[in-house]
Amino acid sequence: MDEVDLFFAGTAGSVPTANRGLPAQLLRADGQRLLFDCGEGTQRQLIRSIGLPEVDAIFLSHHHADHWLGVPGIVKTFELRGRERPLDLFGPAGTRRLLEGVGISAGKTAFPFEVTEIDAGDAVDFDGFRVDVVAVRHRGNAFGFAIVEDERPGRFDPDKAKALGVEEGPRFAALARGEDVDGIASSEVVGPERPGRRIVLSGDTAPCDSIRAAAWQADLLVHEASFLDTDSDRALATGHSTAREAAEIASEAGAGMLALVHLSPRYTVRDVRSEAQAVFPNTVVPRDFDLVRVPVAEKGPAQLLRSDEAGAPEPVQG
Amino acid sequence: MDEVDLFFAGTAGSVPTANRGLPAQLLRADGQRLLFDCGEGTQRQLIRSIGLPEVDAIFLSHHHADHWLGVPGIVKTFELRGRERPLDLFGPAGTRRLLEGVGISAGKTAFPFEVTEIDAGDAVDFDGFRVDVVAVRHRGNAFGFAIVEDERPGRFDPDKAKALGVEEGPRFAALARGEDVDGIASSEVVGPERPGRRIVLSGDTAPCDSIRAAAWQADLLVHEASFLDTDSDRALATGHSTAREAAEIASEAGAGMLALVHLSPRYTVRDVRSEAQAVFPNTVVPRDFDLVRVPVAEKGPAQLLRSDEAGAPEPVQG
Repeated sequence: MDEVDLFFAGTAGSVPTANRGLPAQLLRADGQRLLFDCGEGTQRQLIRSIGLPEVDAIFLSHHHADHWLGVPGIVKTFELRGRERPLDLFGPAGTRRLLEGVGISAGKTAFPFEVTEIDAGDAVDFDGFRVDVVAVRHRGNAFGFAIVEDERPGRFDPDKAKALGVEEGPRFAALARGEDVDGIASSEVVGPERPGRRIVLSGDTAPCDSIRAAAWQADLLVHEASFLDTDSDRALATGHSTAREAAEIASEAGAGMLALVHLSPRYTVRDVRSEAQAVFPNTVVPRDFDLVRVPVAEKGPAQLLRSDEAGAPEPVQG
Repeated sequence: MDEVDLFFAGTAGSVPTANRGLPAQLLRADGQRLLFDCGEGTQRQLIRSIGLPEVDAIFLSHHHADHWLGVPGIVKTFELRGRERPLDLFGPAGTRRLLEGVGISAGKTAFPFEVTEIDAGDAVDFDGFRVDVVAVRHRGNAFGFAIVEDERPGRFDPDKAKALGVEEGPRFAALARGEDVDGIASSEVVGPERPGRRIVLSGDTAPCDSIRAAAWQADLLVHEASFLDTDSDRALATGHSTAREAAEIASEAGAGMLALVHLSPRYTVRDVRSEAQAVFPNTVVPRDFDLVRVPVAEKGPAQLLRSDEAGAPEPVQG
């Protein structure tokens, strides 16, 4: 994979605000588009910013209304646009019935649409990466997701190959591809496999070991921060995290960058950010329509692009 | 009733655009707030503009997804805000089951919530006005609505009362209230009852006699205009109207003002407006967050206020 980024289509928590829509994050990995959660209004958030893409898959972290009520509308819009490409939707047990309740079910849509009920430990494969389903600690059956890029082949050392007497040509290329040639092992001239990128989305959760483990060395951890530390008892009671707790997870996991989402209008962004940054300095609080670009390790760390730099137009009125 | 206006929270048709949300219009009549249709994203449209009020009642014109999918989210938000005031929802037969499909049902909400299934010919009473349910010609069971203000008492003529020998005081006031006093009939000094205001919403419909009749002498007719005349066959096939057809209804009904909604991004606003204005000159095409103020007849005709004049802030980014 070359370009990988995560577009923040909605960064509010349970209730939208003037500036923040309900939860939805769009992963763009080369040509593939995966939507993680799809709160009410997600289709319009995309239409207002980067345009509504032909999403390949939608993952629902859990069944609370703010995380899935955008699904029926987006499916209807795809139908009206004459979509033909298949859409796969993944969600916890009961997702099929949940969507049937709003008249959306496989076989009844104008384009191929499939619902797969997933569980913690499952992995869903895509081209060049997989999505791991991670158990979290929320109210009811709820997941986080780890987007795990395939390991990339080791680096080929052409000088070493030449030193071993292999000239540029078919044998040279075969060695670089990882094949052994004329008694020369590929491993002599090709370095070890390099880990792929890793982006972890916490979904809604109290701080939990499974997200900490999934986020180990992640390039980007997107963690919910529904509360500040002053309300940590409420966070615990409702199965959410404080900004400080999210930062502790990021710090303990050795993540590269922490992006906080699921924000409550109860707090200022400044307070949320500074509480987290005291623990984990590389914390960002994306606005709607910002994105985080995640390059391969050699090309530098994850980088937050504000919506204007991200090429997402400001909403136009009138 | 004193102040009456209609706030356009969403003026798009089936699919939202960058500038137009899905169908929702808010009637404000003194302290009362009635929402007519509630497409996906309606709560946020209100939050982004005039603030989300404690709506007293929601009327659903029909069950197509673009007209009701905002209901569960708005109900959840009311719950999270600790709403205590009752909410009445009115919709076609099957509305109760429709909402149960998304987990919303009377008795299960944190505040009093009642669903009433209505039919054409029904009238729902409010303080100072009623809402008549009007059959329309759409696909399936669909309604328009007529908001009909109570007749206002006739105008009292103080000079005539004095000429009949009644001095200012309790007897004078009694006459003005419509009571007969000392052999003087109130009707001698009070003019005939004056008709109240009338606002008619077509919902989704092909041109139909029932809306034409309901809109007779209406101060404001809000009519859908999903198509232009060049696509009149598609309009007919899908149970929608063209801008010209909407204008013909307004003209034949002798309405004061025509406001076109349910717009398709297929056409420019200029084309929609000019097609209608050729038939009915006082046609407006509200943008989201515009409102039409409807004063009593003596104070002049209905008036479109653009969103800045309407006191609705431009959406703020960041």
